[in-house]
Amino acid sequence: MAVSFSPILHLPHSLPSPPPLKSSRTKISVTASLSSSSSSSPASQMDLHNQGRQKFMEFPFVSAPHRDLMVNLLSTVEDRLGSHLLPCTLPLDVQHCQNESGSAQASLHIRSGLQSSQVDFILGSWLHCKLPTGGALNITSLSAYLNPSTDAPNFMIELIQSSPTSLVFILDLPPRKDPVLSPDYLQTFYENTQLDTHRQMLAKLPEVQPYVSSSLYLRSVLSPTVVMIQIGAEAGGPERMEEIVKNHIDPTAQEVLGIWLDHCARGERLVGEEEKAYMMKRDEIIKKKTIEIDLGTNFPRLFGPEVTDRVLGAIQKVYNI
Amino acid sequence: MAVSFSPILHLPHSLPSPPPLKSSRTKISVTASLSSSSSSSPASQMDLHNQGRQKFMEFPFVSAPHRDLMVNLLSTVEDRLGSHLLPCTLPLDVQHCQNESGSAQASLHIRSGLQSSQVDFILGSWLHCKLPTGGALNITSLSAYLNPSTDAPNFMIELIQSSPTSLVFILDLPPRKDPVLSPDYLQTFYENTQLDTHRQMLAKLPEVQPYVSSSLYLRSVLSPTVVMIQIGAEAGGPERMEEIVKNHIDPTAQEVLGIWLDHCARGERLVGEEEKAYMMKRDEIIKKKTIEIDLGTNFPRLFGPEVTDRVLGAIQKVYNI
Repeated sequence: MAVSFSPILHLPHSLPSPPPLKSSRTKISVTASLSSSSSSSPASQMDLHNQGRQKFMEFPFVSAPHRDLMVNLLSTVEDRLGSHLLPCTLPLDVQHCQNESGSAQASLHIRSGLQSSQVDFILGSWLHCKLPTGGALNITSLSAYLNPSTDAPNFMIELIQSSPTSLVFILDLPPRKDPVLSPDYLQTFYENTQLDTHRQMLAKLPEVQPYVSSSLYLRSVLSPTVVMIQIGAEAGGPERMEEIVKNHIDPTAQEVLGIWLDHCARGERLVGEEEKAYMMKRDEIIKKKTIEIDLGTNFPRLFGPEVTDRVLGAIQKVYNI
Repeated sequence: MAVSFSPILHLPHSLPSPPPLKSSRTKISVTASLSSSSSSSPASQMDLHNQGRQKFMEFPFVSAPHRDLMVNLLSTVEDRLGSHLLPCTLPLDVQHCQNESGSAQASLHIRSGLQSSQVDFILGSWLHCKLPTGGALNITSLSAYLNPSTDAPNFMIELIQSSPTSLVFILDLPPRKDPVLSPDYLQTFYENTQLDTHRQMLAKLPEVQPYVSSSLYLRSVLSPTVVMIQIGAEAGGPERMEEIVKNHIDPTAQEVLGIWLDHCARGERLVGEEEKAYMMKRDEIIKKKTIEIDLGTNFPRLFGPEVTDRVLGAIQKVYNI
């Protein structure tokens, strides 16, 4: 169904049919007046950050409640973790890209954590892609990765909207170690925090069905309390979908993010050297596999090889792989 | 909802209300004419095995298609793995037990693997328990565990029937290592074998809904292709449920068991010493946790402390923990 930057969410292996690329060379939309995206003085770095962030925060193709949700989540993360984060220094042509016909556009916002912090990076993205049916696919995501000095879970949210009345919603704190080997880990982060209640609440809405990713790897990466649902509001129409996003998805996402910020991102759970090596290995495999699944399949079809290579290279640099 | 011997399946934390025990002392139903269950000559061991097996194979409280399914599965496993298995030498009062009022009965059939084989043990069980509402709860299960000389997945099936028109069905090859760290493991046992197609087929039946275990630990133990569904055949009645078991559940279970026998139980995948230590640790944690979840909660309420201790002790001996 979709393609995205999300380092966790699978990107369904078949888009309905890729929007035509008029030539193999894609046109890069750079709204900047900056002279060069490779400028590296602190001032120009902040310009790069601010400009990209502003564009990213527009979320121009989604409904107001959907946009508010994403803007509020990113703002909350930045408010709480801002002092641990570097500015986004991706080149502008990675922060925002589109294909020549304009039928596909994407925005990417990545901020790495300071050396001294336990945050590896945060990654926000949106993707818009016109569908041959006349509609559009819109995917928005926000992920936060911790680094191997701690084994606390990561955070991820993704909304995949394939029509105004159809939404896939994924919200999770993906575990950083094998929960089967570590029942206390489940207890600490998933049972004591009552994470499952959020999944249960959403499952009660009549419009909600479970959603199953086609990628077995990504099913394995997610936690046992993952919210992974498909919402079909054909009966109630787009208004009902907006209502669901505003009154159910939004508060749930804020609460789960709050749990992550309070219990995972505070850096209270340090690991020893041996375990750190394990964390590094597991984190790296996840990053590699999710890039492979996510960007390897559909991104080239939407944006062509040149943009794909550029975006992929930039992400790999942040991922340190 | 249920209580069972299954070493994998969750045992719901609240039975509707336990059948009354007339005294704290429970009466043990032993159909045997054997003089002592502690007899250990080969002949009496085989008697013990045959007698317990016969009683186990009766599955006296479930529908004919449900019984046929379980009998055929166990027969298939014994046909294929029989030369690797020791007879069941559990005491008869562990192979079959009931409470004083007869409102709860259970049967347990465990065969350990020979030292030379890769089978740790196979475990079959059924449990019948009258419900205060007038109905009955019937749980049947079959599991096969491999030992730490291989990392191939285990096999498990469980049917939890709380009325003639309501069934929870779980079928899986639970992974023996963290699939997130081992994408090739997922590829070998789950993708190449197309296990997910069976889950997808069953999900298409209109009577089928996903089932979510209340235990986060047990959700974590299961594979990304687990069949974990709730079947509600209120509209079609008990006949429709029997039809579903016969035409859908039974062939699916046979096929998945066939995959396990062909790809996992043949002992082609040996692990080195270092990994063996990991397998031992992970297997042991799973066995301990599942006993704790399974038998720790509801079994004492159904059968009283004496039977529970006896059954628990016997299982722990087989589990080698």
